[in-house]
This record gives sequence, structure tokens and C-alpha cells, in this order.
Amino acid sequence: MRIGILGTGMVGRALAEGFTRTGNEVSMGTRDMHTTKVRQLDGPQGSMADWFSQNPSVALSDFASVAGSAEVVVNAISGSASLDVLTQAGAVNLSGKVLIDVSNPLDFSNGFPPTLSVSNTDSLAELVQRSFPDVRVVKTLNTLNAALMTNPDQLPEPTTVFLSGDDAGAKAIVDGLLRDFGWTDILDLGDITTARGPEMWLPLWLSAMGALGNPMFNLRVVR
Amino acid sequence: MRIGILGTGMVGRALAEGFTRTGNEVSMGTRDMHTTKVRQLDGPQGSMADWFSQNPSVALSDFASVAGSAEVVVNAISGSASLDVLTQAGAVNLSGKVLIDVSNPLDFSNGFPPTLSVSNTDSLAELVQRSFPDVRVVKTLNTLNAALMTNPDQLPEPTTVFLSGDDAGAKAIVDGLLRDFGWTDILDLGDITTARGPEMWLPLWLSAMGALGNPMFNLRVVR
Repeated sequence: MRIGILGTGMVGRALAEGFTRTGNEVSMGTRDMHTTKVRQLDGPQGSMADWFSQNPSVALSDFASVAGSAEVVVNAISGSASLDVLTQAGAVNLSGKVLIDVSNPLDFSNGFPPTLSVSNTDSLAELVQRSFPDVRVVKTLNTLNAALMTNPDQLPEPTTVFLSGDDAGAKAIVDGLLRDFGWTDILDLGDITTARGPEMWLPLWLSAMGALGNPMFNLRVVR
Repeated sequence: MRIGILGTGMVGRALAEGFTRTGNEVSMGTRDMHTTKVRQLDGPQGSMADWFSQNPSVALSDFASVAGSAEVVVNAISGSASLDVLTQAGAVNLSGKVLIDVSNPLDFSNGFPPTLSVSNTDSLAELVQRSFPDVRVVKTLNTLNAALMTNPDQLPEPTTVFLSGDDAGAKAIVDGLLRDFGWTDILDLGDITTARGPEMWLPLWLSAMGALGNPMFNLRVVR
């Protein structure tokens, strides 16, 4: 499929690598292509130029072009910028498409640990769905570290991911893309309001990361 | 140990059975002893009179007496009534004691699914700790069904429970009580503010229960 990823951060890059590996045609959208191309990454990751030379099939463009040419769009933007970036991508370009929302509404304005900018009676996924009513939003993969999203086999046992969305056809497409990554336990929670659960999992995820000392873990729903 | 359980609902009864089975001396506190003794339970569970005849070592008393005579107190009251009942139990009776908080701040005022009455920037456990500063509050076991709290071996694989609290000694006592129930994966998340995570897990737990069709599941943190 033609998959357009909005965002070139750690999550966007991990998903671009994963979707390329599983045979999809991937483009990435960014606010400013020049700045993105020359950006230095943290630690030993080198630069975005290195990353693009290692991932030569991934095209870089602006948000609107990426959304317009993709069959499936991925929101890999921070929660605080998601609605702005989706607006830049354009309702017309997004119309009728599957939008995989992997973002978390983290609010770092009071430091670490972050709180959620929306929760309990609403969620980022619902905000996105309400703002773009004819987009087929599917919440998934926001519950774990980027490195595990596309490589669940890095953990010693199968773990669980969730789907939330109003459109059964869109969830079936996302289910297939997840299975290509190696996911086998994919739990469909229900409509888009059920995205509150996976988003409100973040505080427990953050505390568990602190207790375990690293982010390479995920939950398994044992039943 | 002498364990005083505040609340005679499904959670309180399950914990009373579990703590009795593992060799503790259990009392239960209720608002109105007469009403409790004659109460009919749901479905095939019979009446509280039947339950007490099956659990003859469990004493029933008022909240203050139970809290005053116990070494470890358990908050098995609904989230909305917790602070009121703890106030009835009495700060003097609770002073210095371990308080195991298994309650969830569920707000059913808008129907099902419930929202949380406190979350994100605060938690029920923190409210209790602030209201009773010299009580040693430990949040645990609120993340799963009552039937599994004291019988984790009912699931086919080991699963995870969490501890949150400011007092290391209190957490060590609770850790021991949990191991007596059969828990082996007990993850200490940190201070009482980390109780936000396990409490905010409830929306995902509720959606998963809906998707799976029953409450006999728990999460395992795979790492």
C-alpha cells in the first residue's frame, strides 16, 4: 500500500522502516523539508541525511503532498501538534482515508512525568475523528515503544496491541498491516471512544518504564 | 496478621476469604451491621448470612472498631464513598497503619462505561494519603477482577500486579501478603503519585472486558 507518515521523529522513522520492510511504498511528511534533511539525531543515530541514505525508497515531502498521495495516513506527530499538522495535511487530502493514530496527548508543560492534555471523558483520537469526520481514524500502537511497534518479536513472549475505531473496514486494513509486522494478539476494543483506554495507559507505561529502567516492554492480556 | 477490611461488597468478601485462607485474622467493617447481615447477594451467591456461616472466623463490626483493632486496613469501599468511610473509621484508629487501597474512583453518574472522578493530575490514592497523612497508603490490586486478586493461579500464565506508596516498609508488608496469595510478579512503581497509572488503567480494563466478554483476565508486563 501507499503509506504516508506525518512526522519524521523516532516513531515516524521506526514506522517508515517497518512499513518499507513489509513491502509498502512509504512517504514521510514534514513541516520544513530543508530543516528535516539536515537535522542531527540524538546520540549514535547520526543525521536525517544518513537515515535517508539508509532508507532510499522513503520519499520526503510536505504534509499535504504526503496525505494526498497516500492510501493510508499515519499520525506520528506529537499529541500537542497533531490537529495543527492534520489541518496542514488538509481535510480534502485526508478525506475517506484510513488514518492510523499512534500519537499520545502528552503534556510536558509541568515537566516529567507528563500528564495527558485530554483524557477520561475524551481522547486525542476522538478529537481527531470529530475534527475530520470523514476520515477513518484507527487508534493503535500508541501503547508501546517505537522500536517494538514494528518488531514485536523482540520481546520473549507475544504481547497485545489494541484497535479502536468506528470503521470496521479501516480496522481490518490496520489489522493486516499489524500482522505483517508480526503482531498476533490484536484486540479490537470497539469504537473510537475506546481509544481513551490505550491513551490513559500512558501514565502506567511511564511509571513501569521508570521501575524497569528501560522502555523495552509491553503488556500481554492474559486470559 | 490482623487485617481489617472496610467494605463487605464483592471485593471485600473476596479479600476476606483470601486473607483468611493465607492464615490471617480477618474482620470486616460495615456501616450498618444489621442491614449487612440480612442482605441478599446477586444471583446464586445467597445471602450475607450464608457467607458468614461459610466464613465463621470473619468478624463483622463497625468501621471504627475494625480499623482500631487491625494491624493492616484495606479500603475495599467504592471510590465515591472511600473518604467518607475512612473518616468514619477514624484518623486515630488508622494512624501509623498500613492501608491497602484497592478502590477505583469510578463515576457512574453518566452511566456505563464509568469515567474516573479523579485522574491525570491526581488519584484516589493520593487523595486518601493527603487526607490521612500519617497512614501508610499502598495502592495495589485495583487493576483486576476480585476473583483473581487472591487467586492469580486461575489464569494460565503468571500476570503482574503493582505497588505504589511512599512507605517502603508498608510496601514490603503488602508484597508479602500478595506473595501468600500466589503473586510472583509484583512491580513496585514508586511513590503514591504512581497510583495514577493503575487507576487510569481502568478504562482500558473496561473496554477489554467488553471485547473479551468476561472479566477473567489480567495484564502481564512482558520484558
